[in-house]
Amino acid sequence: MPAVSNNGIIFKAIPEGIPQPDVHFELIHRTIDIENLKLGKNDFILRNLYLSLDPYIRTTLREPHSESFLPPQRIGHVISGLGVSEVIKSNDHNHKVGDLVYGFIGWEEYTHIKTDENRINCAPFKNINYHKKLLPEIPLSIQLSAFQLSGLTAYGSLMALGKPKAGETIYISSAAGATGQLVGQIAKIKGMKVIGSTGSDEKVDYLLNELKFDAAFNYKKVDLDKTLSKLCPNGIDIYFENVGGETLEVVLNHCNRLARIPVCGMISQYNITDPNGKYGVKNLELIFHKSICVHGFLMSDFYGTQTEKDFDKDMLEWVKSGKIVCKENITVGIENVVNGFIDMLVGNSVGKSIVKISDY
Amino acid sequence: MPAVSNNGIIFKAIPEGIPQPDVHFELIHRTIDIENLKLGKNDFILRNLYLSLDPYIRTTLREPHSESFLPPQRIGHVISGLGVSEVIKSNDHNHKVGDLVYGFIGWEEYTHIKTDENRINCAPFKNINYHKKLLPEIPLSIQLSAFQLSGLTAYGSLMALGKPKAGETIYISSAAGATGQLVGQIAKIKGMKVIGSTGSDEKVDYLLNELKFDAAFNYKKVDLDKTLSKLCPNGIDIYFENVGGETLEVVLNHCNRLARIPVCGMISQYNITDPNGKYGVKNLELIFHKSICVHGFLMSDFYGTQTEKDFDKDMLEWVKSGKIVCKENITVGIENVVNGFIDMLVGNSVGKSIVKISDY
Repeated sequence: MPAVSNNGIIFKAIPEGIPQPDVHFELIHRTIDIENLKLGKNDFILRNLYLSLDPYIRTTLREPHSESFLPPQRIGHVISGLGVSEVIKSNDHNHKVGDLVYGFIGWEEYTHIKTDENRINCAPFKNINYHKKLLPEIPLSIQLSAFQLSGLTAYGSLMALGKPKAGETIYISSAAGATGQLVGQIAKIKGMKVIGSTGSDEKVDYLLNELKFDAAFNYKKVDLDKTLSKLCPNGIDIYFENVGGETLEVVLNHCNRLARIPVCGMISQYNITDPNGKYGVKNLELIFHKSICVHGFLMSDFYGTQTEKDFDKDMLEWVKSGKIVCKENITVGIENVVNGFIDMLVGNSVGKSIVKISDY
Repeated sequence: MPAVSNNGIIFKAIPEGIPQPDVHFELIHRTIDIENLKLGKNDFILRNLYLSLDPYIRTTLREPHSESFLPPQRIGHVISGLGVSEVIKSNDHNHKVGDLVYGFIGWEEYTHIKTDENRINCAPFKNINYHKKLLPEIPLSIQLSAFQLSGLTAYGSLMALGKPKAGETIYISSAAGATGQLVGQIAKIKGMKVIGSTGSDEKVDYLLNELKFDAAFNYKKVDLDKTLSKLCPNGIDIYFENVGGETLEVVLNHCNRLARIPVCGMISQYNITDPNGKYGVKNLELIFHKSICVHGFLMSDFYGTQTEKDFDKDMLEWVKSGKIVCKENITVGIENVVNGFIDMLVGNSVGKSIVKISDY
């Protein structure tokens, strides 16, 4: 086998605000000679099939010193993210040629996994096993949209932190995103009244007509405070927080006593680089007055818990029975990853954003 | 028995900022003819012995429409607060003459409890039973400082929400206050490194030399950020939040992943009446980045839980054995209630603020 194309996306410069394709990223053309490449002990090579494009990646495009749960991307290196791949060469008995695996890979066609490097870099995700069993009966793209990061994030946080009760009201911001679309459907299954907001009329339509939310609105077109007064006359019991900033401030005013706020992200703040430019939330006193619980989490917080076991069982059943559907926004080709990522970040995509890198 | 003096404190006007004695309160001179007073069904009369002066009362001195866990005080009526009293006349078989009870009473010498009025007014506290057994072997003032509101608030929130682990670090703001002094001592018993801040050198001395905190500082004299860097080199695992505003913002920067923040109050914000004048916290994104849990609560959230049972047992043992000591700041006389309250509010008092109304 001769050397093959191994194009990839390099992190070129730290963005302020919304990243731009050629300013902050660079498509590099490389080849890889798989046959002649010498593998170190426990190394293996992945042929990448699908990349998962997720909001958290924006938080890794930052100055090295600033703190987050994942290390920053390194300038001049291929961007790191989650994906599904096939093992095509291996010096690791845990990863056999032909295995399908899920984990951190590069935004590139082939990734050379070096045990001591790639994996150590992802401390809080260290339990992500490249061996994490993929479900043979579920299409690979659905593995990314309903299971893995998006699935366990949605299920784990809603069930373990949100503690849904039938008859209560949940409000979900970024409701048509990868996680929001699952949270809303699980909340419906649990008997909640589900209200979602999103950034386009097309996505509102998706929430109402395909996901059967009780109500949905385009946040760009309404006054949030008045809309929540109208749609949540009994107040909000769970706020599924994806947005942060002013939205959080308004929602706190509508929360009921003992409301739960799982914090899945605060995407409105990610693109504000100046700490003083971030939105200052002035009514946190309500957390005290109303015994509210605001709970940040990572998917990996649920690893090995009963919640994860319940998730594996419930989600498989729901997906198979059609109780849960997942919109996927599939971009094709390594050269289109950056545009797909930016579309996801600015809200131009519906559902789970995925890039198909190669056929399986 | 002729009519006796029943002086009391009337709520005169809603304060902006720190309340002032004669502007917002009024001492009124009244008498009560206990012998000839006709009691309704289930009514009873209390001779008030001790009043408990607590920061939450500031939140009730507000416009009727604004929301909190307790209803606002009513202009022209006697201020309502917690205290210990003796039943001296009763038409209620649950409250016999001579019983000592704890619950909501008026800032006055005698309170006529009318079942359908006084108690209904305190919805989230509805489980406060005027029959709540007082412990015969413990002095009445200690009942207020180590048990009841301050005790269960400290123990319940630290144990159930803070989840202390030996070797971890806790930072307590308002550490020399009624709740803070207990939280710090319980955290020490649980093997934590305990750091406290307070507003005077006298109180710093109390924390270090009487309560044996690992470190304490006068927040008025230091740069909080630098001080926490120095005193908490391993970061903060529990922040016991009494203050809010800018303090919370600084502390979030020092929190470790999976930190817990029980929100007992945000006293820095209570006296700011204009919602736009409140401090805007800009780094809430850290709740997401570090999987922090910010948890508001009320003492009554722990009623009937295992935590309350553990509290009853542990606190009695700790107080009897001297493992827990409580500084009390006892004011004497109904005419001094308002000054005692304001001293507590502005931080002039150490420990639990109590007013002795009458001998027992």
